[in-house]
Amino acid sequence: MAAMIELIQGGNVTSAKGFSAGGTYGGLKTAVDEDSLDLAILRSDVSAAVAATFSTNKVVSPSVTLSKQRVQKGTARAVVANSGCANCCVGQQGLRDAEEMAALAAGHAGVAPEEVLVCSTGVIGVELPMALVRQNIGNIQLSEEGGPQFARAIMTTDSRPKEMAISFDLAGQRVTMGGSAKGVGMIHPDMATMLCFIATDASVEQKFLQRALSESVRASFNMIDVDGDQSTNDTVLVLANGEAGGPPIQAGSGSADAFQEALTYICTALAKELVRDGEGAQRLIEVVVDGALTPEDASRAAREVAGSLLVKAMVHGRDPNWGRVMMALGKSGIEFDESRVDLFINDIHIVHEGIAINYLKDAVISAMSVPEVRFRISVHEGDARATAWGCDLTEEYVTFNSAYST
Amino acid sequence: MAAMIELIQGGNVTSAKGFSAGGTYGGLKTAVDEDSLDLAILRSDVSAAVAATFSTNKVVSPSVTLSKQRVQKGTARAVVANSGCANCCVGQQGLRDAEEMAALAAGHAGVAPEEVLVCSTGVIGVELPMALVRQNIGNIQLSEEGGPQFARAIMTTDSRPKEMAISFDLAGQRVTMGGSAKGVGMIHPDMATMLCFIATDASVEQKFLQRALSESVRASFNMIDVDGDQSTNDTVLVLANGEAGGPPIQAGSGSADAFQEALTYICTALAKELVRDGEGAQRLIEVVVDGALTPEDASRAAREVAGSLLVKAMVHGRDPNWGRVMMALGKSGIEFDESRVDLFINDIHIVHEGIAINYLKDAVISAMSVPEVRFRISVHEGDARATAWGCDLTEEYVTFNSAYST
Repeated sequence: MAAMIELIQGGNVTSAKGFSAGGTYGGLKTAVDEDSLDLAILRSDVSAAVAATFSTNKVVSPSVTLSKQRVQKGTARAVVANSGCANCCVGQQGLRDAEEMAALAAGHAGVAPEEVLVCSTGVIGVELPMALVRQNIGNIQLSEEGGPQFARAIMTTDSRPKEMAISFDLAGQRVTMGGSAKGVGMIHPDMATMLCFIATDASVEQKFLQRALSESVRASFNMIDVDGDQSTNDTVLVLANGEAGGPPIQAGSGSADAFQEALTYICTALAKELVRDGEGAQRLIEVVVDGALTPEDASRAAREVAGSLLVKAMVHGRDPNWGRVMMALGKSGIEFDESRVDLFINDIHIVHEGIAINYLKDAVISAMSVPEVRFRISVHEGDARATAWGCDLTEEYVTFNSAYST
Repeated sequence: MAAMIELIQGGNVTSAKGFSAGGTYGGLKTAVDEDSLDLAILRSDVSAAVAATFSTNKVVSPSVTLSKQRVQKGTARAVVANSGCANCCVGQQGLRDAEEMAALAAGHAGVAPEEVLVCSTGVIGVELPMALVRQNIGNIQLSEEGGPQFARAIMTTDSRPKEMAISFDLAGQRVTMGGSAKGVGMIHPDMATMLCFIATDASVEQKFLQRALSESVRASFNMIDVDGDQSTNDTVLVLANGEAGGPPIQAGSGSADAFQEALTYICTALAKELVRDGEGAQRLIEVVVDGALTPEDASRAAREVAGSLLVKAMVHGRDPNWGRVMMALGKSGIEFDESRVDLFINDIHIVHEGIAINYLKDAVISAMSVPEVRFRISVHEGDARATAWGCDLTEEYVTFNSAYST
């Protein structure tokens, strides 16, 4: 962490100035306890610059379609999010429901309907129960303390809410950036969606905000893997309302790098939380590839290794089965020469110039018996470097995901 | 099966005229019982046209490197294969060992060293125990009844040998084609390799043989998935020794299509056997995509669905969770319109024009409680069609593959 970034104890998506949020239980998902929430709103006091990245799946939820359109305007005031129903593969009704849910949220939050974005997560192929949404959305109490409610309302199989906030210096102002995310764990009865909401009181020009978000997502959410599948509803969005004051940061501003660094920091921290909480996951896998010829090669190789089922299974078994890492590296198709590869597992040098070092296996097994297992692969072709994250593959993942949807 | 293709009861890789084989236990893998074998030779009485396809992984075994070179000559007399050791990631020694193993096999089989191909499967990163190979290769007894020994000697975690033979008419001759394969199941302590050996007494010109094999492999071995990983040692090779007589079949021959059909038939049957015996697998998944715009689109979509962990897990749980199929279809990136997609599970119509039909869930669960679960996805964009195969994902897969290599 750069010195200027400070973690805010108990921080969340409403930590930044001028944001409020709240959640309620609307009956969209099965309540697991009396604190269950499934419908939530995040609101900015003033119009905020908005940027977002969405799922690249050819099948997307109409909630995504609508938000994608509205982000084009460059500003937004609020987001309404629901869990329990993905509002996906439901035909024309899906877009009508997304529009109505946005309008209902707008009415309740006191903003214009077209200033509201929509995110949905849950079962595919089931229509949003609009009667329940109409009946219950008014129960949401928006407040500056509502961040934790928002974080809980977007959860599906997540075992815990994921939220945080940081503060940092930006163009002479101390600004705050909070975030809330839900996970890629897979769910009875259907896949969950990766959602992330970031709210900052920094003043940021919209074009730069979009470019910065894309860059941060590339290095964080696009570098994680739980099971190689990709949801129809994935969304990462950032609202920057400028309430901290100061001139808008734009590309080339003296503070542009500081903003980029902070945004990547929060995206990476939340992305790692998602992986750590992956369905059935017991260990976080970090894969660093360095010495690659190009940044694309480094990313491709790191993701291939972090996404390999065999690598995931060997981490679960604490098995220093390095041939599987070489296999995954080879499968990535990047430029490298086997006879120049070095491999380290949690800093223990395992392979030198493509051949196993006579390491003490028990030491490596013990080094792999920790919550985070790190592979460093040096290919000695150039200067590019990338990091990817995955989680181990456990019997519990299979059990969870083969449960009847009935 | 086309009428002209006849399955030979108890057929195997030495069913065709002029082939002999044998296997022995050389101590390369841990013997599980007194019948364990790990070193084998397949020999043709006369020089045979040879064609092969190999792993496209950037990291390959020197056994593959050597065989790839020798296949260039277009003819071969024998193959020596071992299980227990992949002869991979062992530096320069690997090529020397592969060459020596070929020479030892050549001496024993009475053929020239450069006429021998080499295939290895087993642990990565360990050198071939050449002292054991030297000591034991002479114990192999080559005979026309040796096919089953060969099939057993190439097994790693395969639960059963995979072999078959067919006969068919070709240019007025009755010819025989036998094959033997080992599986992509994953192994303590390392991934297994997909190997397949086909031996036919058909007379086939080498260039056509290579083209026909590539086409058959594209439609069979390249359309199966156990876990998305790709071995460093994969090899499919065919020997055609012409002992059945008749003029060599070449591209454009009247019998070229018949040969292609027979080769694809045997490759597909063996490929499906591999998937059926996938580590921990309980069910075979067949995915047919039709109405695609191009053959590439059809293949890509079929493989994406057959390879999706969530689809594999839902088949394991007999869960008609069709949203996951739509997700995988969307992830494939092929040209289609969600609102025109039809989906059938074992012939039950589940989705029509992108929306769920009100099917009886219990009936579908019951239809999924069979050894083979078939998805048919019609995208209504064109005429192209492809089939892919996968196996379900079970808790046992994870247990097997997370076992310590110690």
